Amino acid sequence: MKGKVIATVKNFAEVSKVLRVADGVEFRIDLFRKPPEPKSVRIEKISIVTIRKPEDGGKYSGDEEERLKLLEKYSKFCDYVDLEYYLADEVFEKMSCKVIESYHNFSETPDYEFLKGIVENRRGDIVKIATLGKSKRDVEKIVKLLCDYENVVAFLMGEEFAFTRIFSLFLGSPFIYCGVGESVAPGQYDVFKAVKILKGLGYR
Amino acid sequence: MKGKVIATVKNFAEVSKVLRVADGVEFRIDLFRKPPEPKSVRIEKISIVTIRKPEDGGKYSGDEEERLKLLEKYSKFCDYVDLEYYLADEVFEKMSCKVIESYHNFSETPDYEFLKGIVENRRGDIVKIATLGKSKRDVEKIVKLLCDYENVVAFLMGEEFAFTRIFSLFLGSPFIYCGVGESVAPGQYDVFKAVKILKGLGYR
Repeated sequence: MKGKVIATVKNFAEVSKVLRVADGVEFRIDLFRKPPEPKSVRIEKISIVTIRKPEDGGKYSGDEEERLKLLEKYSKFCDYVDLEYYLADEVFEKMSCKVIESYHNFSETPDYEFLKGIVENRRGDIVKIATLGKSKRDVEKIVKLLCDYENVVAFLMGEEFAFTRIFSLFLGSPFIYCGVGESVAPGQYDVFKAVKILKGLGYR
Repeated sequence: MKGKVIATVKNFAEVSKVLRVADGVEFRIDLFRKPPEPKSVRIEKISIVTIRKPEDGGKYSGDEEERLKLLEKYSKFCDYVDLEYYLADEVFEKMSCKVIESYHNFSETPDYEFLKGIVENRRGDIVKIATLGKSKRDVEKIVKLLCDYENVVAFLMGEEFAFTRIFSLFLGSPFIYCGVGESVAPGQYDVFKAVKILKGLGYR
């Protein structure tokens, strides 16, 4: 099955705009002016809900208990919630939808054994590994990860390694995360641009 | 230094057409109606001369001694000649220009150790490895090759793995070989299309 193009959105105006080309939406609730009604994340295409804390690259400023409760509420109306890999098993069990278990590292790409550990100990239906790329060796690590495991989203952050976001799809990554206009994450493609590139490559 | 876009041509009409976008030309002398004058392969951009035999995917039908003599003549006027990896050291030594040492395999991608052997025993300034891709494991092999060595062109042939031709540039491959209209090799991109994709990816 081909990987899906997911557009990361910060408001509802963006949702209707991106759904013309994207296969789904990641609602970055922490970037919304205020958390929308749980029901409002139910859409016809793939719906992912993410509430990111500052240490993981987000802007959520409330307390952790409240964040997990919010995720639980949203999980009744979306297809996936994004849960950070360090969260306890009980958190994963409380969700009513599928889970994307995510690992972010904005300073480096750890060695293969560390990343493999996250994937092998997965509780999520999909594991998402997003790390800062510094060298070709980091590309080798994520290519190996994508070859060794299924249902893994893995790519390198940073402008220089943005190409790994596109190429991971060819290696079986279920999703590519794109932005709308200005990117939310380093190296992220605008969704319209990503679709154009993928069409050029014969992928869509 | 960024990788160069090379267009593989079968006649002189194509040369002027592709040089609007390509960084260089590979003259596939075996696909020309008759071998052009040696001097005629001197162009302002990168000039590569290749004379491929049927067993390596080409159409040269003359004898081997004649082929090597022809290459020697062309080598006075081009930047690179392409010499197959199985040729003797003496052949490499006779050339007046740089050499691309090539390995083609239209039935499979051998294991990493075999490919590594070709690269480590190189006589050419650039080593070109083009093998049929069958699985993600084959992608892993060429990614490792591109990470471990410099001045290596490595990609997988076949429609399904055509993306590796683009991807290899980001991993340091000095050249991408493109076609003009109909492709000369399986999975090869049209040069105008390749340039468009690379621009989209921010590479050019």
